[in-house]
Amino acid sequence: METKTMNHISKSPISGKEYAIPEVKDDKAGIDAYIAQHPDKKVVVVQGLGFVGSVMALVVANALTEEYAVMGIDLPTPASYWKIRSINEGVFPVIASDPKIEQYYQNALHKKNYYATYDSYAYSKADVIVVDINLDVQKKSTANKDLEGYNVDLTPFKKAIEAIGNYCKEDVLVLVETTVPPGTSLKVVRPILENALAKRGLTKDKLKVGHSYERVMPGPKYIDSIQNFYRVFAGTDEKSTEAVESFLRTVIRTDEYPLTKLGNTNATEMAKVLENSFRAMNIAFMVEWSRFAEEAGVDIYEVVNAIRMRPTHKNIMLPGLGVGGYCLTKDPLLASWARMNLFGSEEKLGQSEKGVHINDKMPLYAFEYLQSQYKEPLENKKVLLLGVSYLNDVGDTRYTPVEGFYDQLELENCAVTLHDPHVKYWEEKDIWVNQDLNELLKTDYDLIVITTGHKDYRNNKFLLEVIKNKPACFVYDTIGVLTNEEIKYLGEKHIVKVVGRGDL
Amino acid sequence: METKTMNHISKSPISGKEYAIPEVKDDKAGIDAYIAQHPDKKVVVVQGLGFVGSVMALVVANALTEEYAVMGIDLPTPASYWKIRSINEGVFPVIASDPKIEQYYQNALHKKNYYATYDSYAYSKADVIVVDINLDVQKKSTANKDLEGYNVDLTPFKKAIEAIGNYCKEDVLVLVETTVPPGTSLKVVRPILENALAKRGLTKDKLKVGHSYERVMPGPKYIDSIQNFYRVFAGTDEKSTEAVESFLRTVIRTDEYPLTKLGNTNATEMAKVLENSFRAMNIAFMVEWSRFAEEAGVDIYEVVNAIRMRPTHKNIMLPGLGVGGYCLTKDPLLASWARMNLFGSEEKLGQSEKGVHINDKMPLYAFEYLQSQYKEPLENKKVLLLGVSYLNDVGDTRYTPVEGFYDQLELENCAVTLHDPHVKYWEEKDIWVNQDLNELLKTDYDLIVITTGHKDYRNNKFLLEVIKNKPACFVYDTIGVLTNEEIKYLGEKHIVKVVGRGDL
Repeated sequence: METKTMNHISKSPISGKEYAIPEVKDDKAGIDAYIAQHPDKKVVVVQGLGFVGSVMALVVANALTEEYAVMGIDLPTPASYWKIRSINEGVFPVIASDPKIEQYYQNALHKKNYYATYDSYAYSKADVIVVDINLDVQKKSTANKDLEGYNVDLTPFKKAIEAIGNYCKEDVLVLVETTVPPGTSLKVVRPILENALAKRGLTKDKLKVGHSYERVMPGPKYIDSIQNFYRVFAGTDEKSTEAVESFLRTVIRTDEYPLTKLGNTNATEMAKVLENSFRAMNIAFMVEWSRFAEEAGVDIYEVVNAIRMRPTHKNIMLPGLGVGGYCLTKDPLLASWARMNLFGSEEKLGQSEKGVHINDKMPLYAFEYLQSQYKEPLENKKVLLLGVSYLNDVGDTRYTPVEGFYDQLELENCAVTLHDPHVKYWEEKDIWVNQDLNELLKTDYDLIVITTGHKDYRNNKFLLEVIKNKPACFVYDTIGVLTNEEIKYLGEKHIVKVVGRGDL
Repeated sequence: METKTMNHISKSPISGKEYAIPEVKDDKAGIDAYIAQHPDKKVVVVQGLGFVGSVMALVVANALTEEYAVMGIDLPTPASYWKIRSINEGVFPVIASDPKIEQYYQNALHKKNYYATYDSYAYSKADVIVVDINLDVQKKSTANKDLEGYNVDLTPFKKAIEAIGNYCKEDVLVLVETTVPPGTSLKVVRPILENALAKRGLTKDKLKVGHSYERVMPGPKYIDSIQNFYRVFAGTDEKSTEAVESFLRTVIRTDEYPLTKLGNTNATEMAKVLENSFRAMNIAFMVEWSRFAEEAGVDIYEVVNAIRMRPTHKNIMLPGLGVGGYCLTKDPLLASWARMNLFGSEEKLGQSEKGVHINDKMPLYAFEYLQSQYKEPLENKKVLLLGVSYLNDVGDTRYTPVEGFYDQLELENCAVTLHDPHVKYWEEKDIWVNQDLNELLKTDYDLIVITTGHKDYRNNKFLLEVIKNKPACFVYDTIGVLTNEEIKYLGEKHIVKVVGRGDL
């Protein structure tokens, strides 16, 4: 009998089911049986079953012009093992508002062409391996501290590539989709794989390595953000480029969304982090303008909406509580790190790094602004936070800026109640989140803070009425959800403050 | 007889005609005669006959739903007096590719409703005064030096507003269109006018002051950029707001381009400088990425073009020789100055200021990059510069970054030849510019530098052939006009370098 300590258990947050992680990590029989079912199909292995990989594998299993035998592979850890079991048991491990997810998954179940495993032996069967694992930045800074240091540790990424090299065929196509420091495909992935092949006595001449980044948006168009969207790609040599292009054409609607081929993988890798850095910078840029707006009695939201009338300025960002998610919070740092560490430059990408640091400090500023506006010390106050997700109308808590704000309230010993219609369980903080706003509003709070711009909080007349009829409480809107009319209406009984909106 | 020293002469760069500036600055008779021709019309005076004012006056003379008697007013200086005379003599003082300019001007000539003068007496006739004068930033920095200081001197602007106050009716509407430091309408314009009215024994209660910024683009859609485009406006009080709105509705196609009313003039003034700061920052942001691209053997142009496929990233900017024009080079500084000097903040808009400084240094970097790539010292080399204007396909040399680059070549005693199809005379440098590229290409140069992205230089097979068949010369493209194919083609005989494009 297995010893069931917590390290041997992986629990699904979806079904609540607990899985014992096998002690002997061998799934050869399962893999062989699966492959035997699909004798004539090309085999695609997707490495990493997170937000990107699990759905990318689904899209490949529903490819447009070719029938693939797909395998998804992840580590047999408490955090990931349940996904493997879940996929094989008929429960998709991602909850999403996109109905295509379930439809594609049912198709794959019907065709039996999506198998999940933890055994690197799977790589030995692959014609194509798609790399969709994480590559994280270790930030020394948190939203609460003034530290700006960070580190990029490639070790876990390198290990994952080595695992491929130890098993893969010599003519495999390894397609990196992970957001990597520019230079990684040529300077890290290819050398590791070539080395591993050489150690196994195989030639490196047939190896194909390419890079094509995804632009996945979890949400109502999850599948479309992979299958019906523009793709940029490149190979580490000519045959790699051709192989990547051929593969992508079978999976993505390239007739409507033509592929863009760049000169080399450094360029595609740079394009991805540049895209995200552009967005992160545009937010950071707005931060000091929203301070200026507060000082000048200007409503930055109406200013930005006026500017957005210009077609060339449609994407100017709004300030708010902060920046969250997996990409904008780290990609500029990946790029800057690469410039210095993979290309030997003496200069970092100073502006882009600075942008990340500015954004990282936004939740702290939002807290300090509250302190400056609140009538008394915040200690021990009863606080309701509306929103935990970092993104409107989606339940995604990865690097949510709500955390930095929440932490400050905790330091003040506030009694914090959380509400989010899209988040049941805040994984990173191990906290359960309330869903029933009407129920929560039966209680009195000293302070109600809007921390996410969910639809549920906009033009919500019921919410407004309840607040209006409760004993005076301070209302704090960190992201401009309340209209000026609503503020005036509430303002008769309550003090209402909005980040980026001066007293008009 | 008048003494005709240069200070008494104003020469038209269009017709070449010289006008003697009158010693006695009195145009009462001319103004009275003009007004007598239009007894029942409201009078609109446009202050400032530059790129904006001269054309704004034209648009008002061709208003959509009302017939106005328009007067344009400027100073009787060598730089401006010829414009006044030119307008009254039937020659419009702006050369533009927009055919509507001439059509509107002919209409106004026909209706005799656009008179120009230098006499402040004109303000006494005005129902509406539109302020379109310059408000400059004095930069201590130049592209050549590392200084980052600047100053905003409001004196000339204040004098112009005082001139209005000394003559205007007490119920006039003063509509500021000039890009001003946020806070100016409320904290500068209105107090000056109220003071002047009080000195004249008039009430300040009927005075109306508002702000609505133009988004004029000299070029093929010059008129449309005023009449058929979105407008943001606000008044310094309620009656001002109503008056501005009523006036704009008679002039601008507000059915197709609805007006946007903001809460106060601080907001509209901020919106304008924020718009331009956003663009300036986006360019500055790209500067360090293009350095990284050079280091990583990446073509930043193909990367940016790939990114622009995303609807949310369409306006990501390209690096190049630098940033020019009247707005992007100074507006972020106006805003930062206002934050500290009009609103007493201890903090400047640091990122936005930094953006301007980064952009200001681009021409110097382009020169240093050339030095690093060129085989020998640049001293005494024969150089052909293709492009003087700061903007593609337009002849506008205001704050062109070509100047900083040109200055460096001059310091090296290079023999520099200038070409620009849209610029005959480079006013700021007092240099005549060549128009005949084919003629110029009969000469040999050590170095050909593309400094503006005019159509004339793109896909120009003749240019390519001529270069190809000349003795080897170094080709330097500062703004990515040459395609990779063209570079490869030329590269057989020439060394070709492009800013932001590493050796691939």
